[in-house]
Parts: sequence; C-alpha cells; structure tokens
Amino acid sequence: MLNAKKLTTEETLQTITLKAPYLLFIGSETEPIYAKTAAGLAHWVPEKCMGQLSLPGGTIDLGLPKHDVVSAAKAGAKSLVIGTSAVGGAIPAAWMPTLIQALESGLDIVAGVHTKLNEMPELVAAAKESGASLVDVRVPPKDIPVGTGLKRTGKRLLTVGTDCALGKKYTALAIARAMQERGIDADFRASGQTGIMIAGNGIPIDAVVADFLSGAAELISPNNSADHWDVIEGQGSLFHPGYSSVSTGLLMGSQPDAFVVCTEALRTHIKGWPDFELPSIPAVIDRTIDLGKQVNPDIACVGISVNTSTLPAHERAAYLENLSQLYGLPAIDPIATGADAIIDALLGSE
Amino acid sequence: MLNAKKLTTEETLQTITLKAPYLLFIGSETEPIYAKTAAGLAHWVPEKCMGQLSLPGGTIDLGLPKHDVVSAAKAGAKSLVIGTSAVGGAIPAAWMPTLIQALESGLDIVAGVHTKLNEMPELVAAAKESGASLVDVRVPPKDIPVGTGLKRTGKRLLTVGTDCALGKKYTALAIARAMQERGIDADFRASGQTGIMIAGNGIPIDAVVADFLSGAAELISPNNSADHWDVIEGQGSLFHPGYSSVSTGLLMGSQPDAFVVCTEALRTHIKGWPDFELPSIPAVIDRTIDLGKQVNPDIACVGISVNTSTLPAHERAAYLENLSQLYGLPAIDPIATGADAIIDALLGSE
Repeated sequence: MLNAKKLTTEETLQTITLKAPYLLFIGSETEPIYAKTAAGLAHWVPEKCMGQLSLPGGTIDLGLPKHDVVSAAKAGAKSLVIGTSAVGGAIPAAWMPTLIQALESGLDIVAGVHTKLNEMPELVAAAKESGASLVDVRVPPKDIPVGTGLKRTGKRLLTVGTDCALGKKYTALAIARAMQERGIDADFRASGQTGIMIAGNGIPIDAVVADFLSGAAELISPNNSADHWDVIEGQGSLFHPGYSSVSTGLLMGSQPDAFVVCTEALRTHIKGWPDFELPSIPAVIDRTIDLGKQVNPDIACVGISVNTSTLPAHERAAYLENLSQLYGLPAIDPIATGADAIIDALLGSE
Repeated sequence: MLNAKKLTTEETLQTITLKAPYLLFIGSETEPIYAKTAAGLAHWVPEKCMGQLSLPGGTIDLGLPKHDVVSAAKAGAKSLVIGTSAVGGAIPAAWMPTLIQALESGLDIVAGVHTKLNEMPELVAAAKESGASLVDVRVPPKDIPVGTGLKRTGKRLLTVGTDCALGKKYTALAIARAMQERGIDADFRASGQTGIMIAGNGIPIDAVVADFLSGAAELISPNNSADHWDVIEGQGSLFHPGYSSVSTGLLMGSQPDAFVVCTEALRTHIKGWPDFELPSIPAVIDRTIDLGKQVNPDIACVGISVNTSTLPAHERAAYLENLSQLYGLPAIDPIATGADAIIDALLGSE
C-alpha cells in the first residue's frame, strides 16, 4: 500500500474550495443539455450566482443578470465558472480572450471539462501574472491521507444507489435544503464535479488514487458539531461492476448514520452494462449496512428516493406509495415531491 | 464517473512489463531487511536473475554470479533491477554512475522505490539517448479502462486477507509454483510492486485511479485457455478501514473461481488501526462470496493460509490442523508447509 499517513484534525479542510459569487460562463451554447452545469448552479445555489455571460451566438438564458467580465468583476464576482461543455470536453479557442480577461480582472476560473485548465500554457501564464487561480474540479487535491476509520463528531447522511446517474446528487441536495428550511444545521457535501461547483468545495472521489479513497471521503465530511448533518453526495453503486470500489471507499469514509437508497423507476439493468441486472432495493440496503456498520454500528436506511420521470405522470404517486408500503420506508422523488417525508421520518426516529 | 471506455481483447496485455534476465542491484547495502526485494527475486524467480551487483561497502550476497554492468550486458542481462531500498525511498547520488552506465549499455532500469526514475532528468536523458526504458513499477500504465464485469475464459484463484502484510503474495506464489510443479498450466499474477518484479508484469493496483480499479484488475488476469489458472496476488482486506476499496476492485475485476483466505496467527487487530479488530475467517469468506458472486457465481473458498511464524515452532502444525478441522478447509503456511494441501483439495473438487 502506498502510504500510512493518517488524518489529523488540522487536515480536515483539505478539499477543493471555490470562491463565490460566480459568473456563469455559457459560451455560445444554444442547447440546454450542454449547459446543464450552469443550469444546476442557477437552480440549486442562485445566491452564489451573480450573473451569466454568453458569447455571440449563445441563446441560453439562466434568468441571471447579464454581465461581461469587467462589469462582473466590478460587481464583486470572484470566479468565472465554465458551465457548458463543448463536445469532447475541450476549451474552444473562441473562449480564450474571455478567460484571459477574467484572469486579468482577478477572477478565478473554475472548470470540470475534460481538458485541464492547468495544462493550458496561456491560461497558466495569465493566472500567474494576476495571482488568480485555475481550479480544475476533476483534479483531486494532493496529499490526501489514508482513511483512519475513526468516528468523527456530527451526523452524516449518504445517498447510495442501485446504479450511476439516477439522482444521488439531487437527492442529497433536496435533503440538505429541506433540513435547512426547517432550521436544521446541515450542509450538502460534494463528491463529484458538478456537486463541487454547487457546494463550493469537495473532492472528486472517482479521480482519487485507490489507496486514498476512504481518506478522501473522510475529508469530505470533517468533524462538526454534534447536531450538525452532513448530507453527502453518493457515487456509483456497491453493485456496479466498474465502480463498486468507489462506492465502497465513499461509504467507509463517510461512516453515515443514515442513508437513502436512490433508484430510477423502470430501470432494469446497470446502465451501459447490459449483462448486469439492477440490484433490488433490499439488496442495496443489506450490503450498505453490512459494510457500513464497521465504521458506524448505528447505520440505518431512512428512505428511498426514486427518479420517477420515466413513469407516466399519473402513476408516479402510486409508485412511490407502493414502494413505501413494501419496505416500510418513506419514498420520495427529489424533484417531484421534495424530501420532506424523509426528514419527517428521520426527525421522528431521533 | 470519469470514463466509460471498456476493455477489448486487444487491450488485455496493457500491464507494466519487465524484460528478463535481471541484474539485481543491491547498492552498498549491508542489512538484509533493506534488500528483501532482491532476496525475494532470487528466491522466487532465480531463473530470471542472471547476476548481482554490489557497490563498494556492500555485503549482501544473494548467491548469484557477480557482475559489473558491462559484463552483465555481455552475458545477456536485459534489466538492472533496484533490489534495495535506501531509507526514505530515494535514489542515492552514489548509484547514479552505475545506473547511467546500465542505460548506456542498453539495460532497462526497474525500480519500486518512492522516488520515480522518470522524474530524474539525468536518467531520463541517458535513457532517451540509448533507447532503454525506465520502469517505475509503482506507476500504473496509462489509459486503463473501466471494468466490464464480463466473464473471461480460464480459471482464477485470488488470495484475500484478514488484513495487509500477512502473506497474500507469498501464498499466491506458493500456490502457482505448486501447480506448475504438478504440470498444471498456471501463472502468478502480480498486483503490487514486488510481485510485479517477480512476475515480470502486472499493475500496482493501489496506485490506480479509483474509477479504473476493477478495470485494472481485469487487465491483470486476461482471457486464457480453459484449463489455465491465474493465481492472483491479493491486496488489503475487504474489512480494512483504509484499503477496503482496493480489495473490492481487485475482487470484482479478478472474478475468481477460487479464493484462499490469508491471515497471521495471533494477530488480533488491523495492523496500524488499533481500533479495528481483525475480522474472523468466516466473515472474510462470507463477504468475499457475497461480493464476488456478482462476477462469478461459482466463487468458492478453497483454503486458509496462515503466517504461523508468530507461534512457537512446536505449536504450528497443531494450529493449522485445528483451523482445518474448524472450517472444513485445508490450512497451510506458504513458507512452512507449502501449498500442496490446497492444490489437492482444488483438484479433488473438480
């Protein structure tokens, strides 16, 4: 194994950290699907988004004040966030004058596209000149320690999945928001690139070197006050043939008190792995408890979260009600119903 | 997740590969403990080790022919393998003339020390000049794909552990050797740096980025003929608070037909993690089957391997016999008894 260094309390803030407020950059994008990072930010953290900037030809409107780089800097923007992904994940040459101007104006640039900002010499030079930062949210911080497995203070909820890409991030965001609306001290904690942009900090856990996976997860939800909830964005699935080790490391490092199983109505197989059936909800619950109890003996499933958009609208409520009856747990759709049923159950059980 | 690229048959040899025969370099080492990589190579693969080279002051004798770089190159050496680790894992300045001479003579240099050969400008320049390679066995190959979970041809045995550092590599080596001695078509497959030097190829799985862990494990034991056994070096433990995700990825990608649980007599806690009790042998068997059956429904435990060197010599045989009775499985010590009992049981069950 690579390293036996362990966490100390002083190291618990060693995550990627972004400076708000953000100027959301959407290039000359015309298709909403390619601007979903920007749209997610405008939806989940409008208070962090001070404006939007399109290049000529762009037609996406996020409903935010329109700014150029200079007016955004004057209005207090701290980071230009690239909220659109060109095909192939590159940074088009047409963006460069705007990005360089942003750096010259003192704004950090934040991106999760495939091309690394820190590997583009023009941007590196401009950032060095102005003292601004280039933040690649797909690149984990250096010197992540090995996981300790030791119990931290505060409470944690982790969203886990039957598969990838079915709402673990949205579920965590909806739960954190619902907690905050009730006055509960809660934070959304990000483990993926879009989540990191929304939270303003986090670690892209799937890009961490294997030996340090649970250590990275420990950094994501550090010690906190006893009644504080960290609501942690899950990744992958314990049953995923490609990604189960990511999910395992995140579970071990998150040491959750509570978890919510996320799934998608009508999905029958692991997406992209047609030889693998989707695991059942009880199978996911059992394995999550089996593994998780080693780092938190009190781990418990507190709800089911379903992306029901794959069902006809008139069937969705009955589908959730049926699941809830079947498993004796609250069942929500984070978009359609919000997370209140889960919060009610969680508070009732305390 | 980072990448949905999957394995194709053509990619199954994308591992680190070393060129034999090796000239074992032991610097000016005087303490056998620091030369254990060289000693392991001389013990397990003497046929790959054409000679040894010490610098002035060195007293270690591996029992191999003594060579300087020039005579070794003339005698057919293809790689100089650094078989000693200086404190801190650095490459001392005193080694450089020898290493550069080796590169100039056309020998690759192979190292698993902390300092990367490929980050030392003098060595990089000399290697470029001669066309020889600098092989850092701690650095995984690039472009490892995501795991497919698809069944491969041939048979596989994986050594799993109750903890780190208790004989998973030695057990796999002993089993592979015992199979070969009986005329069974078998290969030892390496997942760690010393194992890679012994096998001549492999991937240091603990250094792979999280998303590609099971994909890397799939590369380690590619498709093979139906009656061929790959005997795969395990890593960590499914119950390890720091490294369980490494063990999970290796299990998922290895899709073993058979596994052997490795442990150490009298060890009570995870080494270096005193808050965690060592898992029981049945707990390791159950979890390995629970996770592994998803990629190989026929997975079965075929034996127990114990480092009994922690016991008084006269107690060892009875200790193994007792374990064997208790769990109904052959129990060996790979050094003291060899692996024959496991091979007998494995062949008897086919």
